[in-house]
Amino acid sequence: MSVTVEPDDRYVVGVDYGTLSGRALVVRVADGTEVGTAVHPYRSGVMDTRLAVDGRQLPADWALQDPDDYRDVLRHAVPAALADAGIDPALVVGVGIDFTACTVLPALGDGTPLCELPDLRNRPHAWVKLWKHHAAQPHADRINALAHSRGEPWIGRYGGKISAEWQYAKGLQLLEEDPEVYARAQRWIEAADWIVWQLCGVETRNVCTAGYKGIRQDGRYPSREYLAELNPDFADFVDKIDGPLAQLGDRAGRLTAEAAGWTGLPEGIAVAVGNVDAHVTAAAAQALPPGRMVAIMGTSTCHVVNGTEPAEVAGMCGAVDGGISAGSWGYEAGQSGVGDIFGWFVEHAAPAGYASHEALTAAAAAQPVGAHGLVALDWWNGNRSLLVNHDLSGVIVGLTLATRPPDVYRALLESTAYGTRMIIEAFAEAGVPVDELIVAGGLTSNTLLMQIYADVTRRPLGIIGSAQGPALGSAIHAAVAAGAYPDVPAASAAMGRVDRDVYRPDPERARAYDELYAEYRRLHDHFGRGGDDLLLRLRAIRNAARRAADHTPADPAATPLEVVA
Amino acid sequence: MSVTVEPDDRYVVGVDYGTLSGRALVVRVADGTEVGTAVHPYRSGVMDTRLAVDGRQLPADWALQDPDDYRDVLRHAVPAALADAGIDPALVVGVGIDFTACTVLPALGDGTPLCELPDLRNRPHAWVKLWKHHAAQPHADRINALAHSRGEPWIGRYGGKISAEWQYAKGLQLLEEDPEVYARAQRWIEAADWIVWQLCGVETRNVCTAGYKGIRQDGRYPSREYLAELNPDFADFVDKIDGPLAQLGDRAGRLTAEAAGWTGLPEGIAVAVGNVDAHVTAAAAQALPPGRMVAIMGTSTCHVVNGTEPAEVAGMCGAVDGGISAGSWGYEAGQSGVGDIFGWFVEHAAPAGYASHEALTAAAAAQPVGAHGLVALDWWNGNRSLLVNHDLSGVIVGLTLATRPPDVYRALLESTAYGTRMIIEAFAEAGVPVDELIVAGGLTSNTLLMQIYADVTRRPLGIIGSAQGPALGSAIHAAVAAGAYPDVPAASAAMGRVDRDVYRPDPERARAYDELYAEYRRLHDHFGRGGDDLLLRLRAIRNAARRAADHTPADPAATPLEVVA
Repeated sequence: MSVTVEPDDRYVVGVDYGTLSGRALVVRVADGTEVGTAVHPYRSGVMDTRLAVDGRQLPADWALQDPDDYRDVLRHAVPAALADAGIDPALVVGVGIDFTACTVLPALGDGTPLCELPDLRNRPHAWVKLWKHHAAQPHADRINALAHSRGEPWIGRYGGKISAEWQYAKGLQLLEEDPEVYARAQRWIEAADWIVWQLCGVETRNVCTAGYKGIRQDGRYPSREYLAELNPDFADFVDKIDGPLAQLGDRAGRLTAEAAGWTGLPEGIAVAVGNVDAHVTAAAAQALPPGRMVAIMGTSTCHVVNGTEPAEVAGMCGAVDGGISAGSWGYEAGQSGVGDIFGWFVEHAAPAGYASHEALTAAAAAQPVGAHGLVALDWWNGNRSLLVNHDLSGVIVGLTLATRPPDVYRALLESTAYGTRMIIEAFAEAGVPVDELIVAGGLTSNTLLMQIYADVTRRPLGIIGSAQGPALGSAIHAAVAAGAYPDVPAASAAMGRVDRDVYRPDPERARAYDELYAEYRRLHDHFGRGGDDLLLRLRAIRNAARRAADHTPADPAATPLEVVA
Repeated sequence: MSVTVEPDDRYVVGVDYGTLSGRALVVRVADGTEVGTAVHPYRSGVMDTRLAVDGRQLPADWALQDPDDYRDVLRHAVPAALADAGIDPALVVGVGIDFTACTVLPALGDGTPLCELPDLRNRPHAWVKLWKHHAAQPHADRINALAHSRGEPWIGRYGGKISAEWQYAKGLQLLEEDPEVYARAQRWIEAADWIVWQLCGVETRNVCTAGYKGIRQDGRYPSREYLAELNPDFADFVDKIDGPLAQLGDRAGRLTAEAAGWTGLPEGIAVAVGNVDAHVTAAAAQALPPGRMVAIMGTSTCHVVNGTEPAEVAGMCGAVDGGISAGSWGYEAGQSGVGDIFGWFVEHAAPAGYASHEALTAAAAAQPVGAHGLVALDWWNGNRSLLVNHDLSGVIVGLTLATRPPDVYRALLESTAYGTRMIIEAFAEAGVPVDELIVAGGLTSNTLLMQIYADVTRRPLGIIGSAQGPALGSAIHAAVAAGAYPDVPAASAAMGRVDRDVYRPDPERARAYDELYAEYRRLHDHFGRGGDDLLLRLRAIRNAARRAADHTPADPAATPLEVVA
């Protein structure tokens, strides 16, 4: 990068751990200027069919990672980013990280991952379970049913449903499928907190993942009695996840000599408390004030917004005190398929001549609202918003012989905008206002999509000013941990970047979309809230037909592990 | 063609008038052997945007034809077919025709089409209105509403709805939009009957179109009182359509010298009474016995089946005494989009690599029933089966990121099979049994589709043995008119061709389809029978959006005719 570097400048490094790689970003403390960056891909990537160490086959819906790949990002991406910046590493005063979540691993009391113990390397359950490990759905179902039947007070904070992705479902699966590994796991820890532990030698538990993924509410985790009723041997689960809590932006510790050796950073600099990719993006986008919702739009969308009061919002991922920034209630929601759906259309449903987003967008942009006559339900990858059901599927209504690819493409863009409006309205009904949208992520470049979101949601829409939102957010947290700013909001104001009001709702189009949104909502409730469980029956029919054809057992987790030559 | 011709052989000629061309077929009387054929396209084709004679623009949903194009088929296709057969034309003993319906024109009392009068050539309403002229829907709506409010006895025979395509709706549109042409139309006649008039110089009205399209039931047309209540000037409408009725297979008259000159056929040979393409196909496919339903499957599907008793079947096109063959009650039903939908998918929704029916069929054929997880409503071109609503549209349910083009393609094939089963069950519930299916038309070559129809309907499925079913059917009627057989069933048995039981339902697949069909039926009733009128609202939204963008008036028929340079 070519940025004028002044002798007095100080820097921080943000490291963003994604699904396939990690990115390091060197940022000037004074104003958030990004001066250097580098990416390092994970050697083992996502292990979703075989365990890399021995080629052993994994059951359906598994997704593992190798924790040493995370250390490799420190060893390779951080020095490369420093080199790219061309600065003296001695000018770096802090480092912060963000991670996918809930990505979680079993470890010894000293932080050693169980998969690094020689006698456990061939045990799939000893490895990191990536966020999209989805094999614990039966465990999540039991967790939710029991919470409701016992009237657990925390369940409302999660919209009534705990996800199969989170710490408890994955932990219960571990216990019941490999009790020995469960027993030897002294710690069950988010990868975000584990990598911070690797950097500073101190175990911490950030309030964000403790709240969202660890079900910590009002200072308490779920009770031993509740856990014992799930499984008597699960009663001690909280002992494995409880640890020194720390607020976001706090200093977890100081960089160890070993980590300084990996990174080329000065020993002893501040290491910020771990955090989650979507949540740090709020700081990067100057979206910490209540009412300013960040939508990180990529293959899926994650929404985070601060509120002033605790509230229970049906189907939302969670409400956590300080979950985005200390002093506010952090709310998180999500749409499980967004860019994935558009990509599916381009790859699998668009004829030659329309096989690019650009061609489809250009052709779809000129249409008057409603002229295609279509409404779609954006559930190609299930629904993790108000309905929280991965077995739901997509619907297109209104097709005719005159329907053309840009019509369907536009209807799919719109369907995800309707899905976002459903979320915004659910927040508003629960007393959490959303006054504007700030969009980050890869989809910001689609100007038609952005305008549709403004028109459908009737909110002004801004765009984050950095292409590396999460890494910038981590760097902001590093600056706070280093004491350069009094708190995250102050650092966000100085170092974050956003172009607000880039898209404003057009009154006429917004009126037209009101009518179509009402249809979407009706269809949503019909197929998603008990009007007709057709989608769930179709999923059951599909699964039964495939099992009959494959002669595979009904429960993928019950598949015996077989070593494949 | 190369067929051994014996000196004693006698021949008949069948002429099939389609939407874009006419086909002549020379057939041996003794056994139905096809010895020669030729096709002649209509010079003016379908006039759906401009009137050919002066380039005048036509409103939306219009579709006109030039009656002289029909004579041209006699002038060109018949001589060419005779030449192709290589037989002595003196051996031909009869000629018969079938036509699209309801295709209808205004004429003078001597049969002269009004569009051939010099002062009316520029008047769109003076030309032939092709079956797919759909601009009379508002008139059909009034016809139906009044019939129900007056409790007209005939409305039940048409499933409760008279189509906008039929003689009354088109006639009422003529009266109200061009009263002068209406007044000068001494005859309002099916093209089937008009071309027979041209051949033999005698006006007849075949009982098939008189019954299905002319609302003749129990020996009567609708009353003057009913017609006058639609419009006082419409009271005399039946005077224009009433004429000498004739049974199918009867001789309408003998070939005139003029028509002999056009065709090269012997003057004085028998000319059979006019008939409809779908209905003559039943004779060609040996499907006149009650319970044997013929499905003519092409872009759309027409179903005809004989029954022994009169019955009222909801949503069916009609029940007519002798409408398929004298002595039985002829039942007709239809699906407005079948091959059209598959073609739409290949052209507009399949990526490169799947852009042919063959590639999609090959990939879809191996799937277990239900494995794609999809159900579709086959209403891409509306529904003219049980629901009779052209404003309905298609629906696909169950889409996921793992859905691939062969999955959707197979779901579309299946959706049309479910639509056929709905029709068969409606007949069965009304007391008209359907024991087997005989399929004719272009889709018979898709073996996957045929097997799906057998599995879904749980009926054995046969295939017509001629590629020219309608023309062969017309030739069969010509043979009866010439006295070569005592009646149409006898001629059908001797000259028709069918391979029965080519596809038999597989019990296991049929059971699996029962479950999916139940889902289709539920979805059909939800979107088609008042559960949710979403599809109709989407159509209204679409039309309003397009009108607002185009600044065109709401009622296409109200568009002033403008001469375009």
